Parts: sequence; structure tokens; C-alpha cells
Amino acid sequence: MAVYTDVSDEELAAFVARYDIGGLLAFKGIAEGVENSNFLVHTEAGYFILTLYEKRVDPADLPFFLNLMRHLAGKGISCPTPLVARNGEMLGELAGRPAAMVTFLDGMWIRRPRTVHCAGLGEGLAKFHLAGADFAMTRANSLSVGDWRGLLDLSLERADEVAPGLGGELSHELAHLEAVWPSDLPSGVIHADLFPDNVFFLGDTLSGFIDFYFACTDAFAYDVAICLNAWCFEADLSFNVTKARAMLNGYRSVRDFTPEEFAILPTLARGAALRFLLTRLHDWLNVPEGALVTPKDPTEYLKKLRFHRDARSVSAYGLDE
Amino acid sequence: MAVYTDVSDEELAAFVARYDIGGLLAFKGIAEGVENSNFLVHTEAGYFILTLYEKRVDPADLPFFLNLMRHLAGKGISCPTPLVARNGEMLGELAGRPAAMVTFLDGMWIRRPRTVHCAGLGEGLAKFHLAGADFAMTRANSLSVGDWRGLLDLSLERADEVAPGLGGELSHELAHLEAVWPSDLPSGVIHADLFPDNVFFLGDTLSGFIDFYFACTDAFAYDVAICLNAWCFEADLSFNVTKARAMLNGYRSVRDFTPEEFAILPTLARGAALRFLLTRLHDWLNVPEGALVTPKDPTEYLKKLRFHRDARSVSAYGLDE
Repeated sequence: MAVYTDVSDEELAAFVARYDIGGLLAFKGIAEGVENSNFLVHTEAGYFILTLYEKRVDPADLPFFLNLMRHLAGKGISCPTPLVARNGEMLGELAGRPAAMVTFLDGMWIRRPRTVHCAGLGEGLAKFHLAGADFAMTRANSLSVGDWRGLLDLSLERADEVAPGLGGELSHELAHLEAVWPSDLPSGVIHADLFPDNVFFLGDTLSGFIDFYFACTDAFAYDVAICLNAWCFEADLSFNVTKARAMLNGYRSVRDFTPEEFAILPTLARGAALRFLLTRLHDWLNVPEGALVTPKDPTEYLKKLRFHRDARSVSAYGLDE
Repeated sequence: MAVYTDVSDEELAAFVARYDIGGLLAFKGIAEGVENSNFLVHTEAGYFILTLYEKRVDPADLPFFLNLMRHLAGKGISCPTPLVARNGEMLGELAGRPAAMVTFLDGMWIRRPRTVHCAGLGEGLAKFHLAGADFAMTRANSLSVGDWRGLLDLSLERADEVAPGLGGELSHELAHLEAVWPSDLPSGVIHADLFPDNVFFLGDTLSGFIDFYFACTDAFAYDVAICLNAWCFEADLSFNVTKARAMLNGYRSVRDFTPEEFAILPTLARGAALRFLLTRLHDWLNVPEGALVTPKDPTEYLKKLRFHRDARSVSAYGLDE
């Protein structure tokens, strides 16, 4: 649930007047997203989403995110598209925050994805990767292998409060990943946070991606590895190989993996699991007083990490070696 | 901020299919209202608001509220209008809660109402009272003079924690109001909760009323008295007699007060102030652990109550006696 900042009707009317979208008719705070404040805005030209960027987003990154969304939309990838104000800018300021207005994207996120959704996700993700190929801007992944040790150090002392032996297990895992992590895979813009709530469907058909605020320049296959973690485990944390196969084959139907990507996929999946484990562990151990949001259980990703550690090849994900 | 219940895409699609509004295209939780969960729903027929009634609303009261909204809309009062499902019902069930779908009402609530808004409110309120005259259903006001002693008893022992002498002052005030409270004023359906966030405007023009979940059968002038409290005090709790005059004259331009209503208005305003003071006092003294909502300061209404106690006649509200 996220409306961190109240916006007055007067401020909003002035902000809307910066765009060529007619007069303001209605606006309502949206209980979605945990990083920013979002509002539904109805004007004479239609429905839009207004986002106020709160503290967790670095304002210096906003031009990358907004230009990326416009670039992708121009390439036929369905995603919210930032409006350009009359002054030529996509980024404005409202209630003391950087703010942007984007198009309203139809579709709903799927609470319980089925195999058909995983297949659609794989295909859509590959199209996303191809569409970003000629995007000129870059942004380093600030949550990649080189950042994990710093993250782990923040939690190491108290990690065993969460699960006995967790600190040792994570130290060992990280040392291994640091030693084998690849640096020469095919790369470009990745979404880096494609959990089910960031992918919209209409019925069984993918209707678009949202929430580009972790997007960065990194290995395409790492994005795939994040999706293996986020989409292919059941609620009981058993791995659904049918979903994984459908997702990977959906991806390959648009952009095939190189032999190197294929071989390293279990390692990337371990790394992706560790990345979410480390941020969740930190959030779990550092709940601010009076927090409105219950932190997510980090041990979910410990179990996923162990699954990928046991995966000797892509055969664990339903593909032939 | 209010989404207390998560609704899955599958449940929602089944619920939407009960209505003749086409396929489901999007839905988003709305951070508005504190009693119920609200969602924006986009279908092939347009935009709607879905409300799930949470614990604080008595399901037995829902037919009164929903039929009232349809009745008022039929009389030209702008308000969200419940849709009738194919089975003829306005009320359904979703995620284990009573649920209804209403039309999307344009307009915004005014954070800092000016005199022009108070005038529009008065006029709109009188039209609302007239439109409800032939509404067949009734619902007793469960927060009227006969209920205040029970409410006060819940807080009396600890009232002085909030302000020294508060318990004694409220006991004295209540005894007076119980003795003089009128029972024979012109009555009908009143809104009973017309705070600024329940009144929408487009620019300076009233565009409709929302949130009918305190509506009941009571004296029209008591509804006016609630609005005097909710709209005519400034942030520093000084009374703005210009706003009050504009509101009362707006009301009178549509439905004039009887001499009895006119004479008793200061008493009704004292009662309205006491009613909100008592519920706020109870909420203030009984914040549930882990509450998401900060209770409203009850002493705001103590200051308003004292203002009305000093008002000898409607001249305090800017009208000639």
C-alpha cells in the first residue's frame, strides 16, 4: 500500500496543466507499490498514473528509467509510457518530490500464475531484451555480485537469529559465487525485478510490464534467472519444472540462449536467489519502528537457493542439456 | 488508506461477470476511506468502484445505503450509483465480504475549502434533503443524543488524560443536551458525515457526495450543524463566519429553515461537536496495537463545542436573528 505523500487538489491541477491532457476530473491514491506514491488521475483526455518518487529512488536514476520506458514503448513493448510535458520534460516536481505522469496500462497481475503465464512471460521477456538492445543509456546494477558482500556484512552478525547456521551458509555461498560469477555474457537492459506483481495479463495473454525502478544494464540470462526464482516455485516452495520449461522455451522462441548462458544458468539462479535473500534478510532484521509493511520472510529464498545449488545443469529446469 | 482485503484476479473476474459491464481490463486498490476496501475496476464498459464492506459496517444496513444511493441518483443528486447485477441484486459477495460495484464519480475533495465551496455545499445539502423526502426506507441514527451517554461512559474514567477537567465538562454538556434536545424538527434522510473528503467538486462547483455509510433518518438541521463543524472552522480553530453565512444561505436558497430549526441551530451544533468529540475520544484512548491509522485529536472538537456553547443565536453564524 503506498501513498506516502498527500497532494492537494490545487497542486495537482497545476501539475496536470503542464501537459496537453485537458482539465483535471478526478484523482485517487492507489494502494500499490512500496517504493513510490501512485495516483490514478482522470483528465478530459483519459486515465493516467501519476508517480511521486519517494526516498528510495535516486533522482539521478530517473532519466534512465523514464527514457527506457519511452524507448521500449516505441519498440512495441507494452509498458506505462511517460507523458512529455509542454516544456519537453518527462520529469516534473510535485509536493516537493520528483514526479512523472504515465499512461494507464490495462491488465492485472496474476496471483497464482499457471504454466501458460510462465510461457508468456518468457516470450515477453525475450522481446523486452531485444527491444532494449539499441537503448543508448546505461545504468550499473547496484545489487549485483560485487554488492552482495557489503549487503551480507550488514546482516552477518545476526543472520543466525533467522535460521541456525545461516551466516556460515551464506558466507560460503557468496565466496563460491564471487569466484565463478561470469562477466562476459550477452548483456543489455534488464528489468531485474520481474515478480508476478510487475507483469500484467489480460486473461492468459501478457499485456505489459510495469515498475522499471530496478532496471539496469546486466546479463540477459540473469533476468531469466530472477524469473525462475519468482515464477517457478509453488507456494510450498517445491520447484515446478513444467513452468520453468515453459518459461525457458517461451524465451528461446524469441531469443535463443548461447551455450555459455545455458551452462551457467544454475549459477545465475543461485545468485538471483542470494540477491533477494540478502535484501530480505536486511529488511527482516531492520524493521523500522511503526512500519506499515511486514517484511518478507528471507528463508523462502534460502530454500530456493538450496534448490539451485543442487541443480547440476539446465536439466533441473526441464531442458535437455 | 484502505485495502484491507486482497482480491484475486480470478475471484474478481467472476464477480464482474455478474454485471452487464463487459470483460475485466484492470483493477487497482484505492488508498481512500477508512471503513471499507475500495478498488478501481476498469471493464469494457468503463471505470467503476468496487467496495468490499469490512467489519465496521453492519451488513443489515447495506440495503438502506445502496437503495438510498440509487434513489438519490434517480432524483438527480450526483453520487456513486450501485450497479444492479443480472440477478437483480445490488449486493454480492467477494472474498468473503459483502460487496457492491458503483459508478465512478468525477470530482475531487477540497483540502482547503473556500467560501464558494461552503455555499455550494449548503445548496447541495438542501437538494439532497429534498431528494430523500420520498425515500421509503428508514434507519435510526445510531450516534444521536440517546447514544452519547453510553459512548461517554466508555471514556469517562480516562477523559482527563486528554485534557484536565474534560470528563466533568463533557458530563455537564451531555446533561444539558439531553434535557433540551429537540425531537420534532423536520426530518428525513441525512448524510450525517459530510466532511470535506466526502464532498467532490470540479473546480468550484459541487460534483457530488460520497460515502453514505453513516446516512440515517434524523433532523435535516442536524446535518447542517455537522457541516458547520466540519467546514467553517479554520486550521487554527477560529470560526469563519463568512463561510458559515455562505453555507446557511446556500441551504436556504433551496430549502428554508423553519423558525424552530433556526432557533435551535446552536444547540444542534453543540450536539454535533459532542458526537464527533465522543467517538474521537474513544478512538484516541483505545488505539489498537499496531494500528495503521493515527487517531484524530479529540480536543479539536472540544474547542468547537465551546464555540457553539457561547453562540446565543444564529447571529453567531452570520445570519440575522
